Amino acid sequence: MNNASFDDTLAALREVLGEDGVRVGAAIGERSMTDWTKHAATRPAALLLPRTVQQVARALAICNEARRTVVPQGGMTGLSGGAIPRASDIALSLDRMAGIEEIDTASATMTMLAGTTLQTAQEAAFEAGFELALDLGARGSCQIGGNLATNAGGNRVIQSGTAREQVLGLEVVLASGAVLSSMNKMVKNNTGYDLKHLFIGSEGTLGVITRAVLRLRPQRAARHTVLVAFDAYDKAVDLLRRLSAQFGSDISAFELMWPDFFRFGVSLTASGRSPFAEAYPLYALVEHASFDAADDGESFSAVLGELLEEGVILDAVIAQSVSDAEALWAIRECTAEFPVKLDPVNFDVSLPTGVLGEFVDRCRAALDEKWPANESYFFGHIGDSNLHLTVDGRSVPDVSHHTIYAFVYDMLKPYGGSVSAEHGIGLLKREFLAVSRSPEELAAMTAIKAALDPNGILNPGKVI
Amino acid sequence: MNNASFDDTLAALREVLGEDGVRVGAAIGERSMTDWTKHAATRPAALLLPRTVQQVARALAICNEARRTVVPQGGMTGLSGGAIPRASDIALSLDRMAGIEEIDTASATMTMLAGTTLQTAQEAAFEAGFELALDLGARGSCQIGGNLATNAGGNRVIQSGTAREQVLGLEVVLASGAVLSSMNKMVKNNTGYDLKHLFIGSEGTLGVITRAVLRLRPQRAARHTVLVAFDAYDKAVDLLRRLSAQFGSDISAFELMWPDFFRFGVSLTASGRSPFAEAYPLYALVEHASFDAADDGESFSAVLGELLEEGVILDAVIAQSVSDAEALWAIRECTAEFPVKLDPVNFDVSLPTGVLGEFVDRCRAALDEKWPANESYFFGHIGDSNLHLTVDGRSVPDVSHHTIYAFVYDMLKPYGGSVSAEHGIGLLKREFLAVSRSPEELAAMTAIKAALDPNGILNPGKVI
Repeated sequence: MNNASFDDTLAALREVLGEDGVRVGAAIGERSMTDWTKHAATRPAALLLPRTVQQVARALAICNEARRTVVPQGGMTGLSGGAIPRASDIALSLDRMAGIEEIDTASATMTMLAGTTLQTAQEAAFEAGFELALDLGARGSCQIGGNLATNAGGNRVIQSGTAREQVLGLEVVLASGAVLSSMNKMVKNNTGYDLKHLFIGSEGTLGVITRAVLRLRPQRAARHTVLVAFDAYDKAVDLLRRLSAQFGSDISAFELMWPDFFRFGVSLTASGRSPFAEAYPLYALVEHASFDAADDGESFSAVLGELLEEGVILDAVIAQSVSDAEALWAIRECTAEFPVKLDPVNFDVSLPTGVLGEFVDRCRAALDEKWPANESYFFGHIGDSNLHLTVDGRSVPDVSHHTIYAFVYDMLKPYGGSVSAEHGIGLLKREFLAVSRSPEELAAMTAIKAALDPNGILNPGKVI
Repeated sequence: MNNASFDDTLAALREVLGEDGVRVGAAIGERSMTDWTKHAATRPAALLLPRTVQQVARALAICNEARRTVVPQGGMTGLSGGAIPRASDIALSLDRMAGIEEIDTASATMTMLAGTTLQTAQEAAFEAGFELALDLGARGSCQIGGNLATNAGGNRVIQSGTAREQVLGLEVVLASGAVLSSMNKMVKNNTGYDLKHLFIGSEGTLGVITRAVLRLRPQRAARHTVLVAFDAYDKAVDLLRRLSAQFGSDISAFELMWPDFFRFGVSLTASGRSPFAEAYPLYALVEHASFDAADDGESFSAVLGELLEEGVILDAVIAQSVSDAEALWAIRECTAEFPVKLDPVNFDVSLPTGVLGEFVDRCRAALDEKWPANESYFFGHIGDSNLHLTVDGRSVPDVSHHTIYAFVYDMLKPYGGSVSAEHGIGLLKREFLAVSRSPEELAAMTAIKAALDPNGILNPGKVI
């Protein structure tokens, strides 16, 4: 092992990255210290700001040689602490490696550097006459590299899959400094192991993503939004199934809201009033998106009418305008206010769709029995088998967040559920990873980590 | 190393698998010796026929301990020699591990053992009111485990992706005998490395797939088929783009045929006559598949009419009945006759869609210059960036297949193409893998192979 002094390492890094490419001490701003969770803000030992893939490669080679640990950082919008440094870590920011490099309309692909924000990529795709089928609340700040490192989910998964499904090619720098360039633009390519899928979702523990080729989709020209009410979870599954059978991936959102969540959401809207005259046991916000600009949503409304008659749904409010649709979405988007209005203990679990409703009922009963004063909010992207639960820590002031995590995850195991549907494991869920993965799986992950990062310099303490 | 004699190993295997679960010598039939390429038929040292995952695990542990190499075998329908044994290998057949274990309609998933044939799985999905979005010519013989091990492509990729995209969960037995069970049924699951994608497409070199959870899709109730003609490749790309923008994944096939292929296909149909009165520079068979049983294809025909007027397409024959559609498909499906009518040298390459047409022109010119008598047939799933080329070995009798492979692959490199779009690397393309993958990628694959199969007992000599 080369036990170079930290000063020697910094000098070598400055030689590669220039004086302004290496920061230490007070020159490192708060943004590099923690993510959107605000957990454990820590100033790293240094912050690297490379401008090229070659600089990333040489910087990692120096750190690997000196056995200095490196935390890759994107837009710092993560929700599981995957980019939070320790005081001894060197942070490596992709901020200066941004930009769309190519849009290939024949292949319907887009090539970009990892530091490009999601919104920049979305806008460039749109201008070229396409849609990038990845969207999430942090779009203005989050970066493509981070989106892929965490396999981000977001608003369009029911239609086009998670971030993973948008990726055709990837460039990754390994801990050794080797540049793994798999900038494939083809839908079909069966030449050896599919390395890209290993790096996507590995949260910076196997390599630093520096470039990507993403698939583009045709633009959806018409959107139709409806809020529906049910008397039971099974009816919601029935509706989802019936709409999918009729409209396939034209169903672009299916957001189920349990009453506590719905009431909270309504209370934060401009009117403060429910669109329905009465309260129901369950609500869903459903969106239909058509490629055909001339589609006025009549066929969608007609099917809803039939299902209303059949009793699958109890009530429906169809948006008649864009502002109607925005008002309905405002209820669901109250989640943006959670950090302000609550002390949120957030869960981002997944369960097979068939048992998700039963889990909510059992989970609520168990929470109420254990902590009668708890205020908890359930909603889910049930087409993606994804349930979000937020417990307001203020309602159970004597209970630690950790205790609540452990209580809920413990209930998840018998359902074959996963502790993270979309936010990832990072730092915050690492101790609960074994709820969802077997000892054999963890051993395989550890073997792969050792094979690709033998000195363990990449994002230590995260995921595994 | 444990240098147990082969007899000792067989005795240990018989203890685990029973007398009828271990075959040697003449008891091993021809089916276990080679795949559909008929390349290098070889009787393996033994054939194992486990009935349970536990038996697979114990058998692999025995072979690993004794350093005996193992070749996993499915339906033996592969086209790259990935399941062909050497005389010293032990073949492990999944034939006795077949059957659908569950169809979960709420999750829209299907769980099955790896030895289940694709057709059995398709039929079970259909009976449950769904569609399995994986289809290929070998459906009656190929097995799901083999389909996933090679990441099979087939007829539906433009609509629903390759085999990989259908998989939610996987059970794999590692060389050590460890059972890696990741039988996930959720669309979203971000808990650590995505191991399943590593095994999918690894052609049995990293583990033996024993079970899978596949996604089910809604049934497509109406199909509309058309044969169109173009004057140039760019027009075909334009048509694909325009149809995708209007119909999205309702475009379920887009099969481009160059004139030599088209003439050969027509010559083998019942009538032997082209559906068109004149010859054109390029043809495409296009299929539109709608979820809506009431869709009579009028909107599809209307768009084609517009494009005919605009000159994007020169001519079109719209199938008016199922038998019309079958007659059009018969032209494209002449490939089934290749092994009978030709001495086929098959290529299964992929290229970015935008340069695929140029590659065909250059490739044909180069072939004609080098071997003026060559008879070659080009067709492609251009929506999947996949080109098939078959050179008839009889037309160039003094040229080895290997010489033709090397000649074509050499032309592919500057286009960023891949030597296998869907058939895989196996035995036959191993020496050409470096055309499509960099030294850094090959090194990473080798490191992963060593991490998961340190003794190298699984499918040696394949892929890497």
